[in-house]
Amino acid sequence: MLQWLRQYRRAQLPGDISAGVVVAMMMIPQGMAYAIVAGLPPVAGIYASILPPLVYALFGSSMTQSVGPMAIVSLMTAAVIAPLAAAGSGLYTVLAAQLALVAGAVLLLCGALRMGFLANFFSRPVMSGFTFGSAIVIALGQLHALLGADVLHAWPHPQVHLPSALLGGASLLALVLAKRYMAALLRRCGMPATAAEIAARLAPMLVVLAATALMAWSDLPARGVRLTGGVPAGLPGLNLAISSAHWKPLLQPGLLIGFIVFLMSMSAAQTLALKRNEKLLSNHELVGLGAANVASALSGGFPVTGSISRSAVNFAAGANTPLASVLTSLLLAGALVAPTGWLALLPLPTLAATIIVAVLGMLEFDTLRLAWRYDRGDAAAWLASGVGVLALGVEAGVVIGVALSMGTLIWRASRPHIAVLGRIAGSEHFRNIERYPAETQPGLLVLRVDANLFFGNAEAVSERVEEELRGHPGARHLVLVMSAVSSIDTTALFALGELNENLKRRGIGLHLAEVKGPVLDRLRHSELLARLNGRLFLSTAMACDELQRLVAE
Amino acid sequence: MLQWLRQYRRAQLPGDISAGVVVAMMMIPQGMAYAIVAGLPPVAGIYASILPPLVYALFGSSMTQSVGPMAIVSLMTAAVIAPLAAAGSGLYTVLAAQLALVAGAVLLLCGALRMGFLANFFSRPVMSGFTFGSAIVIALGQLHALLGADVLHAWPHPQVHLPSALLGGASLLALVLAKRYMAALLRRCGMPATAAEIAARLAPMLVVLAATALMAWSDLPARGVRLTGGVPAGLPGLNLAISSAHWKPLLQPGLLIGFIVFLMSMSAAQTLALKRNEKLLSNHELVGLGAANVASALSGGFPVTGSISRSAVNFAAGANTPLASVLTSLLLAGALVAPTGWLALLPLPTLAATIIVAVLGMLEFDTLRLAWRYDRGDAAAWLASGVGVLALGVEAGVVIGVALSMGTLIWRASRPHIAVLGRIAGSEHFRNIERYPAETQPGLLVLRVDANLFFGNAEAVSERVEEELRGHPGARHLVLVMSAVSSIDTTALFALGELNENLKRRGIGLHLAEVKGPVLDRLRHSELLARLNGRLFLSTAMACDELQRLVAE
Repeated sequence: MLQWLRQYRRAQLPGDISAGVVVAMMMIPQGMAYAIVAGLPPVAGIYASILPPLVYALFGSSMTQSVGPMAIVSLMTAAVIAPLAAAGSGLYTVLAAQLALVAGAVLLLCGALRMGFLANFFSRPVMSGFTFGSAIVIALGQLHALLGADVLHAWPHPQVHLPSALLGGASLLALVLAKRYMAALLRRCGMPATAAEIAARLAPMLVVLAATALMAWSDLPARGVRLTGGVPAGLPGLNLAISSAHWKPLLQPGLLIGFIVFLMSMSAAQTLALKRNEKLLSNHELVGLGAANVASALSGGFPVTGSISRSAVNFAAGANTPLASVLTSLLLAGALVAPTGWLALLPLPTLAATIIVAVLGMLEFDTLRLAWRYDRGDAAAWLASGVGVLALGVEAGVVIGVALSMGTLIWRASRPHIAVLGRIAGSEHFRNIERYPAETQPGLLVLRVDANLFFGNAEAVSERVEEELRGHPGARHLVLVMSAVSSIDTTALFALGELNENLKRRGIGLHLAEVKGPVLDRLRHSELLARLNGRLFLSTAMACDELQRLVAE
Repeated sequence: MLQWLRQYRRAQLPGDISAGVVVAMMMIPQGMAYAIVAGLPPVAGIYASILPPLVYALFGSSMTQSVGPMAIVSLMTAAVIAPLAAAGSGLYTVLAAQLALVAGAVLLLCGALRMGFLANFFSRPVMSGFTFGSAIVIALGQLHALLGADVLHAWPHPQVHLPSALLGGASLLALVLAKRYMAALLRRCGMPATAAEIAARLAPMLVVLAATALMAWSDLPARGVRLTGGVPAGLPGLNLAISSAHWKPLLQPGLLIGFIVFLMSMSAAQTLALKRNEKLLSNHELVGLGAANVASALSGGFPVTGSISRSAVNFAAGANTPLASVLTSLLLAGALVAPTGWLALLPLPTLAATIIVAVLGMLEFDTLRLAWRYDRGDAAAWLASGVGVLALGVEAGVVIGVALSMGTLIWRASRPHIAVLGRIAGSEHFRNIERYPAETQPGLLVLRVDANLFFGNAEAVSERVEEELRGHPGARHLVLVMSAVSSIDTTALFALGELNENLKRRGIGLHLAEVKGPVLDRLRHSELLARLNGRLFLSTAMACDELQRLVAE
């Protein structure tokens, strides 16, 4: 905790200052936009960007993570709260904060229980498909704000509000062009490459400022272009409002959101930790994110997490320590203390355009393409996860994602690789007879199990063994080569015991060879070795020599 | 399908006949009792024992499985339907059948999608704990019927209905004594051992018959001992009654029940298949159980499954083929066509006693005891699963069970075993330096990864590698020995790619040794090998010899 502060070196300061300023400028439109995605007043997005990063800086373990509102978590917030409270109502705001409180408590609890391993519950293809589907849902949800009218529901007779649509379209165009060409243009104007990259990331802020100026000096608001409306000046007060009737309906969504907050933040933090050769402590991350969400709830915000895009900007702009995030917080607090009249003039079509460009930037097909070539099962999981979010919503998407990841895992485990081994003539080496010209011995079946044994494959292994025995009816001895087995769980231990009893009844010996040290240590706590209808051998060659003699007798 | 009938041999007939008769005699009280557990009229239990086993005989793959009502599935049925319909109402009966329809459809769909691997979703400790908790819940639920009064809710001033309690207590005593001593007694009277075992299994039927006779010839019913009441004569009609408003609330419970039906049946069938050296086809089982549940719904029943205790009796009584179950069905149908007046006289306290003795027979501590000695994590999972059912109910118990199984799995995966290897002096052998006096080479770090690489451990492996590199700051080359890796999923492939890029930036070579054939084949579909900042070596020794030369240069 605060180790970075005790070890702070002066040389780290310039980078932290520049990152703090850049991220603050990025955060104002982004925070407001993601509050809108969550169905909340824009100022809630700024509230959620002040206290949470400060608290995360105290407890988190990532040096460059930027914690605050994030598109997918905002989408989930809206999906949870919308059925429970009317949009724009006071209850809606209370429940959004309460959801952050529940999610924060869940994360803190998981942190206390040291459950950081939960970060491994999603496979990368499932995560990528989930992100893809969520991004599409968010972008579609902004179409009505972009065009000033409800296009999708009015289909097939869409109507748009022309001034809004023109502003939205122009903003979108400006953002897309800036994203593609601005950095190159600035470099050509002589700006250093890194500075050009960072300046290009501020394009949304520039576009928003330009649009705000246009609102101030044109009659577009009078023509019906909607604005964010008044942003109350001043820091957020301490929010202790709670709807006690809603603890129960918020419990399960709070669990799911806490899970996604953790997954999203970890995937951002891991990418950065890799670049900086840092060690990430997943249990600290749980505590940091949990505390940040509780802080968000107490300061009138909503669920927050580490954002991969914002953290990447933070890192690129030179952040060395969480001091950068502390500075961002202070600048945002300053923006609320200063006159906030200009924030009320932000046009919603432009904010919608920034959201759409941001989430479309989350679309990536690399994972799908690679998975398609490398492993069709993973590609199918990507598609199912993406389609699941689109068809059934983002909450169901999380459940589907977990089910798919676990399903793939158990499905793969249920088909363990087991090789029949034979001896390479004149050597001590044993190899898979399907791949090498290896010789088997009559009366002897040698199988190498290429997986750790656990409940997911225990039955499958027993079945494969029985199948091989049916294929080798003359076998009197079975040798299981355990060189690739580094753990055996209780379920698999039972299955081995049953196999042993079964083979004993049929007069077939069961022998184990090349059992690893830790596995053997563990097995000594069970009765399997004492009851084994056969012997333990250090090497496969020793087992075969000895058993060949036995068979020949 | 029906292969057993085409290959039927006359020698199989006597065994099938005796098993058919024995199971039918067991099924009458058991079916009625489990219908009561499900909150249904007793006759529904006999309906559910007629058509489902016939249909299972057509589609299932187990030769000796006995499909019909089962305690835990009945408990789940009651847990699902009780909040939706009043006990004893017509709607209750309709919804119970509809639940079987949903569960059957889910099972058929899973069968069509070849999802038999789902049977591997529960670890044995979790299953054992779940069964334990469910058995306690069922036994507690029968106390009021056993004692003729609601004992638990009236606590601390319990009252019992004395005639009921005496009858219930006597039945319980008779059943427990019969279970413990009847087989031995019969053997001592000269009966062959197997016949004695089977006759002892009919004790519940005998006790029920004796109690029924007592009801007919005493005034106990007039003194308030409750009876099953009229059992309508005749076969069940075709039931097409559906409550269309209840599809949605039955969907998720139907999924859970389908899952438990499959798990329970598979664990019964696997035990038997092992004894008979038969191959079980899990996808056929899905179809057989799905069709049986649809048949149960259409004939006025409720969710059914294969029962381990009843199937064991079927097997012990000589069943060779599903003809035994067909015969059981016909006998039960005959019992309904014959006068059913005597069935109305069954006293509920005696039925409750049969249920309690049956479910207490499901309690076993062996799994917990073994897990406690062998793997504390598995023991904790047993306890959490059992306590979960007791505290939160049987439906939540299933979800907790899956979460625990998967949690244990991911938790274990998140701490993969990785060994630093050294050379056994003067040999070609490389071993874990913590266990063997093996020599390492300066500038060279050799790690053996003892797990298949997948999303659950990809990050953990990367982190361990980084940790070892921090511990060996002089290392210029890293060799990953892949002898224990038999699969790499897309997530792990990405992680390896990132590790490779990262090491390349730091000028550290990444080399792979002893990559298995199938893994290598798969890797050729990716870019990892082409981009590898190092080489592939057939053996660790070759890698070290070559790299030592490089380091020395």
